[in-house]
Amino acid sequence: MKYTITILFICFTQLHTLFAQVHPTAFANKTEFQFVKQNLVSNEMLKKSFSDLKAKVDAQLGVDIDVPVPKDAAGGYTHDKHKTNYLLMFDAGQMYQLTGEKKYAEVVKKLFLKYAALNPTLVNHPQATSSSPGRLFWQALNDANWLVFAGLAFDCIHEYLTLSERQKIADGAFKPLVDYFTKDIKPWFNLIHNHAVWACAGVGIVGIATDNDDYLNMALYGTEKDGKAGFIAHLDGLFSPDGYYNEGPYYTRYAVLPFFYFANAIQQVKPSIKIFQHRDSILKKALDVCLNLTNTDGSFYSFNDALKEKTYTSNELVVAVDIASKAYGVDPAYLPVARAQNRILLNKGGVEISNNLKKTGNKNLSFPYKSAQYVDGADGKSGGVTVLRNGNGNDLMSLIFKYSSHGLSHGHYDKLNIQLYDKGNEVLQDYGAVRYINIEHKWGGRYLPETNSYAQQTIAHNTITVDETSHYKGIEKISEQYHGNNFYGDLSGKNVQVVSSYDDHAYSNVKLYRTLFMIQLPDANQKLVLDIFKTKSDSVHQYDLPFNYLGTMMKTNFKYTSFLTEQKTLGKKNGYQHLWQEAVSDKLPLFTQFTYLNHRTFYTISSLSSDSATAHFTRVGASDPSFNLRHDPSYILRTNSQNQTFINVIEPHGNFDAVTEISSNTNSTVSAINKLQDDEMYTIAEVVINQQKLLAIQCNNDNSKSSVHEYLYEGEILKWNGPYLIRYNHKNLK
Amino acid sequence: MKYTITILFICFTQLHTLFAQVHPTAFANKTEFQFVKQNLVSNEMLKKSFSDLKAKVDAQLGVDIDVPVPKDAAGGYTHDKHKTNYLLMFDAGQMYQLTGEKKYAEVVKKLFLKYAALNPTLVNHPQATSSSPGRLFWQALNDANWLVFAGLAFDCIHEYLTLSERQKIADGAFKPLVDYFTKDIKPWFNLIHNHAVWACAGVGIVGIATDNDDYLNMALYGTEKDGKAGFIAHLDGLFSPDGYYNEGPYYTRYAVLPFFYFANAIQQVKPSIKIFQHRDSILKKALDVCLNLTNTDGSFYSFNDALKEKTYTSNELVVAVDIASKAYGVDPAYLPVARAQNRILLNKGGVEISNNLKKTGNKNLSFPYKSAQYVDGADGKSGGVTVLRNGNGNDLMSLIFKYSSHGLSHGHYDKLNIQLYDKGNEVLQDYGAVRYINIEHKWGGRYLPETNSYAQQTIAHNTITVDETSHYKGIEKISEQYHGNNFYGDLSGKNVQVVSSYDDHAYSNVKLYRTLFMIQLPDANQKLVLDIFKTKSDSVHQYDLPFNYLGTMMKTNFKYTSFLTEQKTLGKKNGYQHLWQEAVSDKLPLFTQFTYLNHRTFYTISSLSSDSATAHFTRVGASDPSFNLRHDPSYILRTNSQNQTFINVIEPHGNFDAVTEISSNTNSTVSAINKLQDDEMYTIAEVVINQQKLLAIQCNNDNSKSSVHEYLYEGEILKWNGPYLIRYNHKNLK
Repeated sequence: MKYTITILFICFTQLHTLFAQVHPTAFANKTEFQFVKQNLVSNEMLKKSFSDLKAKVDAQLGVDIDVPVPKDAAGGYTHDKHKTNYLLMFDAGQMYQLTGEKKYAEVVKKLFLKYAALNPTLVNHPQATSSSPGRLFWQALNDANWLVFAGLAFDCIHEYLTLSERQKIADGAFKPLVDYFTKDIKPWFNLIHNHAVWACAGVGIVGIATDNDDYLNMALYGTEKDGKAGFIAHLDGLFSPDGYYNEGPYYTRYAVLPFFYFANAIQQVKPSIKIFQHRDSILKKALDVCLNLTNTDGSFYSFNDALKEKTYTSNELVVAVDIASKAYGVDPAYLPVARAQNRILLNKGGVEISNNLKKTGNKNLSFPYKSAQYVDGADGKSGGVTVLRNGNGNDLMSLIFKYSSHGLSHGHYDKLNIQLYDKGNEVLQDYGAVRYINIEHKWGGRYLPETNSYAQQTIAHNTITVDETSHYKGIEKISEQYHGNNFYGDLSGKNVQVVSSYDDHAYSNVKLYRTLFMIQLPDANQKLVLDIFKTKSDSVHQYDLPFNYLGTMMKTNFKYTSFLTEQKTLGKKNGYQHLWQEAVSDKLPLFTQFTYLNHRTFYTISSLSSDSATAHFTRVGASDPSFNLRHDPSYILRTNSQNQTFINVIEPHGNFDAVTEISSNTNSTVSAINKLQDDEMYTIAEVVINQQKLLAIQCNNDNSKSSVHEYLYEGEILKWNGPYLIRYNHKNLK
Repeated sequence: MKYTITILFICFTQLHTLFAQVHPTAFANKTEFQFVKQNLVSNEMLKKSFSDLKAKVDAQLGVDIDVPVPKDAAGGYTHDKHKTNYLLMFDAGQMYQLTGEKKYAEVVKKLFLKYAALNPTLVNHPQATSSSPGRLFWQALNDANWLVFAGLAFDCIHEYLTLSERQKIADGAFKPLVDYFTKDIKPWFNLIHNHAVWACAGVGIVGIATDNDDYLNMALYGTEKDGKAGFIAHLDGLFSPDGYYNEGPYYTRYAVLPFFYFANAIQQVKPSIKIFQHRDSILKKALDVCLNLTNTDGSFYSFNDALKEKTYTSNELVVAVDIASKAYGVDPAYLPVARAQNRILLNKGGVEISNNLKKTGNKNLSFPYKSAQYVDGADGKSGGVTVLRNGNGNDLMSLIFKYSSHGLSHGHYDKLNIQLYDKGNEVLQDYGAVRYINIEHKWGGRYLPETNSYAQQTIAHNTITVDETSHYKGIEKISEQYHGNNFYGDLSGKNVQVVSSYDDHAYSNVKLYRTLFMIQLPDANQKLVLDIFKTKSDSVHQYDLPFNYLGTMMKTNFKYTSFLTEQKTLGKKNGYQHLWQEAVSDKLPLFTQFTYLNHRTFYTISSLSSDSATAHFTRVGASDPSFNLRHDPSYILRTNSQNQTFINVIEPHGNFDAVTEISSNTNSTVSAINKLQDDEMYTIAEVVINQQKLLAIQCNNDNSKSSVHEYLYEGEILKWNGPYLIRYNHKNLK
């Protein structure tokens, strides 16, 4: 025993190591692998996950696996090959630990030796167009992915390797990439950014796997080991105190994988850090926020450059949910997610999750979506995001309101934007990103130019564009300096939820204020969104308020002229060049209605606008030489005015069933919108709905919950506390 | 007992009756209702269907149900009310028989007495725009629907009514409508047309329910009772000997309901007619063809004015499947259909179907889709429809080829059109109809004008339009006189299926010939469609061959110019006015490739065209003032030539998974198409695919299976029998 330790010590010193571990440990130790093995007999989902992984690995056994010289962009052969290789290495490493069969360790070793030969020869990738070029891949980020999985794989087969093999791999396969990250592109490695999280995790896991404390410390505390960069700084800097990540849930998904893999490895070797408890369990909060910001089908809300096809069944969330279940115990909220994922990580958390699912049997499970107000910024002072919700199961309606900070390079210029989801469908959309991920034909699967020229621009969002110019003039550097602010919010009501936020910086000369009420009418069991959107300025501007609806136009209460045989773009820049103008209204009536059909539900947008307002019907798809854009419609309200107050009611109603051929309640129940007052003190709107009056009062200059307000309405003195009051049919609604 | 019979006899004579029945009988007799009741305990699906129906009826008990004066178009209040009323009457009638509770009979009686007061006062419906106006509804067809269900309902509560009540209802509720059909609009009633089937069924079922032999005989044999019209004539005239109905499966669905309800009633009272065995069991054939012409998700192939949302879970198919199961016994092919329907008719067939399903448990079931060649026309001599298929379950690929007759007023000008479905998705589409059924906002739910101006026109189809003019100049009267013709077909091969058809009349000066091979390459397990489309003319014409693809354009092997800031229509009439021209190619290379992504699969269309060919990228949506059209794309090959042979390969390949972010085989494996010969005798094409040669030979002037042919190919004399030969990698493929 002593002898062994001595040998190990020699080995580890050679590897510049100050600590020595028993391997495997980075992903799971022997005890944990043993626990997984024991459960294999009795647990169906585990058995399936195990045999799926095994079958995937078995298919590669006996094949001389190519480790090609890097050449292709994302989606191309060498890119995909290196990606499948690192996944295979970790998968085979797990198989080795779970079956004890040497053939699995052997395939990993052979690959490692090939990489040990290749990696020292690498220079920047020939397809590198990123500001942080990669070596095996076109961008450094993918090289960091490689390090994470290769590190985990090495740890799994550590015991199978001879000392000299370990040395060869550490020096040949790992060191060139670790050096590249921590020396050549050190500034990038030391950023607080999700890409750098991957780099830290990669370097750190390799450190643990190869017993290299230097690597681990750089990963934890930055190359200077001063804590200004590195993993801990990421935990402190990337998330808000609520666990919100300012790139949005689609990117949280991407970031969680290295966070959880690396945290798990840290917990294994340095439990004293209490990494999972760090910052009031910020990792669990981050995961929970990410899951709460999904549609009922599991797809992430379309914040920033999101891809809408992506759901929480993606591998990253399997890893996060199962490692979280190991670290924190199984949260019942994760069970519906895990059931949809239909596979588990082969670790303790995965086993426990699947044992829990076994117990629930066929019982209906749905994620406990809840209304939430999340602050943004590491200090929680950079605005935030609110989700207003009503309903259960498939009848859930979710309104997402964004007044956060910019969201790094994938951020959109979308202050005070809303998205509406109802009955599992997107009803008012954020376009997301223009990208066909990993499809070579589409610029190697990268973000396409229309992401910036259209999808990030303000007009692609359900918020106001002033003078056809995007927020912050569409300049990231400026946008990064600012954020929206919350004025007040109240999610406590059964029938009324409200959030009110504003922005002072998107335009130098216009301030924006938006208040959103999600209301359920008590008698009719009817939901609606009341949206009061105000602008304040010293001068007259063109205000465009789009409703990027998804569905088919059904009817309007106003006349419009269609461009039947010739079509032009709505504008020339800032996203407008991508919009075909399909129709334009005459001067609108003050009370304006537009109804569309989305799947089986009708939606009517009723609006009180102003004298000069017009409506524009547009469709995405212009200035698109490579057919990259979806041809989605928009309904844009436009006014030329100074201080404008748009009052909109967004109302789902009725049902259309094409199979039974029955449609019901196809007409809106809103018949009038009146503005009773609108000044520095109050904005007061009256909506006639179901022949009843809905009264909405907001105090514009006092958000204190305790302030007392009074208003004389139809001969009655109304008196209430706090910044808002909703009454319906002469009764307060809450 | 004798007394009762005497009383009944008096009653029936008063009702001008020559025969007397024990009621109920039209839908089911006492014994059958008893059988249903007995099974209620043990059969879950039956129990659910029963309690769903009961709940629906119970919700209306104690309510004074409105029988309004007809006023609204489809989708409006009075329309929907009369529709829900007739459904309620039949449902409540069944409940009365199944529970014995008088409250159910009472609600039906009350409604009948209201109709008995209303119907004699009716004149043509105020919204009637149809050539066959209705009285309760805007078109006579819906009045016929009312008669069918009201007749079945009356039969169910017959025993509950007093003699005078029966008389009152027969005279007041039924006679005005029956007289209207059989006298006022007699020519319409005597048509051989699916609407008239409903009228016959309505009058016939009312005849059986009210013991009125005159009604029944008019329904069976036409108003003149000479057999030239009426139900039997419909069985003989509406279907081809194969059971194909020339309006297509979407309309077969609609027609089957009255066919099966009435046939069932006839079988109950006149078993000697052997109605279900009539014409070699034509009713079963019709149902089976209808089911075989659906996509794997149960939606009907988009022939003619079909609505794509409609599936075989619609009520009509529940009725047809369950009555067919009663009449013919349970066909195992119906079980997956019934499982998807998830409900049954409360009759013997429904019970047996659900008992069978209970036995199969959770076992995977899928409809046994098969390749088929169906003739069209009552005599089988009006061309037909062929479906070529390959694959099982979700991997099924189906190519539908239409060379049938016109298909009445809902027919499209689409001779030699193809539709392609693969992996459950529409890949090359027929637009279907432009209609939002029963949505009042969309012209009362009627067929919209763009159905005729776009969807029915040839350019909306995957077949050739000559000189921007639709087949038969888009004139129904002319199109009705002609049909395509089959040249040969062979569905017997495992690796090759083929169909070849032609049309001589769509254009006076151009003949069209199309041959389609569905090929599975033996080594690569790869499917493809080889499409040889020839024109023959004395003069030069513009030939447009569209591929109405669904999906996103990925790449082309040629350059094109996009219309970025201004867009015009492709043409001015015949459907072209509805197409925005998005891009146009320069002169195409002879070998042309276009790749698109449909859901998760890539499709490449490789084409050999001619010197002068260009490609046009269009999108539906122009000249659409009311936003009725979907914005679907098309890829149109255009040549100006005399005798043109388009050789196209349609090839599914690869996979795109947005969740795992992996795409594979994104490129076509076809690298060349050569035309080795193309004359009166033979068309010979060579396709280079996977670096192997696929040789396709067709004899153009001899379709005999026994004729011997020879061809010298690469130094070898090939010799074969019959009109075609396919070789791949130097071996015959079959």
